[in-house]
Amino acid sequence: MTPAQTCPPAFLALAHAMADAAADVIRPYFRQRLAIDAKADASPVTIADRDAEAAMRQLIEVHFPDHGIRGEEFGACRTDAEWIWVLDPIDGTKSFVSGSLAFGTQIALLYRGEPVLGMINQPITGERWLGLSGTPATLNGDPIRTGDRAAIDQAVLYTSALEQFDRERHGQFAVLAAKVHFTRFSHDCYAAGLLALGGIDLLLESNVFDYDILPQIPIVLGAGGIVTDWEGRPLADARRYDAVLMAANEKIHRAALEALCRA
Amino acid sequence: MTPAQTCPPAFLALAHAMADAAADVIRPYFRQRLAIDAKADASPVTIADRDAEAAMRQLIEVHFPDHGIRGEEFGACRTDAEWIWVLDPIDGTKSFVSGSLAFGTQIALLYRGEPVLGMINQPITGERWLGLSGTPATLNGDPIRTGDRAAIDQAVLYTSALEQFDRERHGQFAVLAAKVHFTRFSHDCYAAGLLALGGIDLLLESNVFDYDILPQIPIVLGAGGIVTDWEGRPLADARRYDAVLMAANEKIHRAALEALCRA
Repeated sequence: MTPAQTCPPAFLALAHAMADAAADVIRPYFRQRLAIDAKADASPVTIADRDAEAAMRQLIEVHFPDHGIRGEEFGACRTDAEWIWVLDPIDGTKSFVSGSLAFGTQIALLYRGEPVLGMINQPITGERWLGLSGTPATLNGDPIRTGDRAAIDQAVLYTSALEQFDRERHGQFAVLAAKVHFTRFSHDCYAAGLLALGGIDLLLESNVFDYDILPQIPIVLGAGGIVTDWEGRPLADARRYDAVLMAANEKIHRAALEALCRA
Repeated sequence: MTPAQTCPPAFLALAHAMADAAADVIRPYFRQRLAIDAKADASPVTIADRDAEAAMRQLIEVHFPDHGIRGEEFGACRTDAEWIWVLDPIDGTKSFVSGSLAFGTQIALLYRGEPVLGMINQPITGERWLGLSGTPATLNGDPIRTGDRAAIDQAVLYTSALEQFDRERHGQFAVLAAKVHFTRFSHDCYAAGLLALGGIDLLLESNVFDYDILPQIPIVLGAGGIVTDWEGRPLADARRYDAVLMAANEKIHRAALEALCRA
């Protein structure tokens, strides 16, 4: 058995540089009255999303031109590379254009399909979550830890966008939501950061893309959390995920799976 | 016709002092693992909510002991006073305990039932919205202005908690939500602040209390927005509001009323 691949320091440095570059692009656009365009799937996009991704891709091309890229706005290239960057310049564009702080830049680095680095950067508050496989996750350098609430009726449940759930997933979600302490919405990647900090116990998503989820996995795992689908299976590398469940600890993960399965 | 009462400078100074005092109480508790108690109506409350309101009430007792108080956590006193402070130490306790920034301290000052001052203070980011009747609303001293989007299919709609809507209000909300660009949730007072900044066009609430809403009215009005019920009637002073509609401008207000009334 070979040890899991870790992230070389030069790649981590690039991730930080990309988050900085994206933040420099995004900051001047925050709370400005931007044109909101609609993408093919009707999700909103702005000049800030596009320019921030372009800035990140340029850094990859300069420093590691043999690395692959899968980005939300400009698609994929060199997808057979050993190292692939997965980029979401603004995860939570709806929050961004509303002026809410519940958005962030997301960066993952995959080694042969396994996320070895995950980063969420909030360009306005300066909060930067980092997960490196096999090491404790951090917020601005300080180790972070998921919560230990085990009782489902005490749990704090978040999901970003119920409108992306199909009817069956809606039903499963409703059964779980009826059991928890309370449910909140519309926080996108910021909710994964809060789960890693111990404020949120369960995070459910459905119909999301690789760039929405993969950057969060090393952070949540490195903070002591669990990431699976809604039946408890680990997430393989994919372009789209039908169902994602993140949990703060094993007990609350098991309780959530039970509720979802009885739905 | 007498001119509308304005807020005396000493009362404005007290509002700032109360927001500062509440922030000093709240900040050390942010993202700590607090016990979350349930109130009679099952809404969550923490030691931060209680201590912040106590700190504000103490300042009122010291400086203007003849003023009335209506607070979320410790109830009402001297309710026949000419000047009444309406206090919500943490509007968005669910966000607060989750670690989200979408919460704030709310303060209103009523003169004979009319809100002449409204303040929303975010203790972590340091954002302070201020509305004084008859003057432009500000964020940290800078004038702010609601948006001018007039087309309903371009509108950004927020609401805090659909679970507080009854079946009829749910139906009305759904008709409006189907017409707008997109809908987001769970931002409480922060959403009113964002509406005053131009990022949000419509904010709907149902089944909310005076301390949830009254502090937002001078801010939204002072930024150029409109506040009514769901039939376009102005809000009178009350302890509870069945239906609140805030809109960025007259055109979007009219379009929202039409959608709500056809539901």
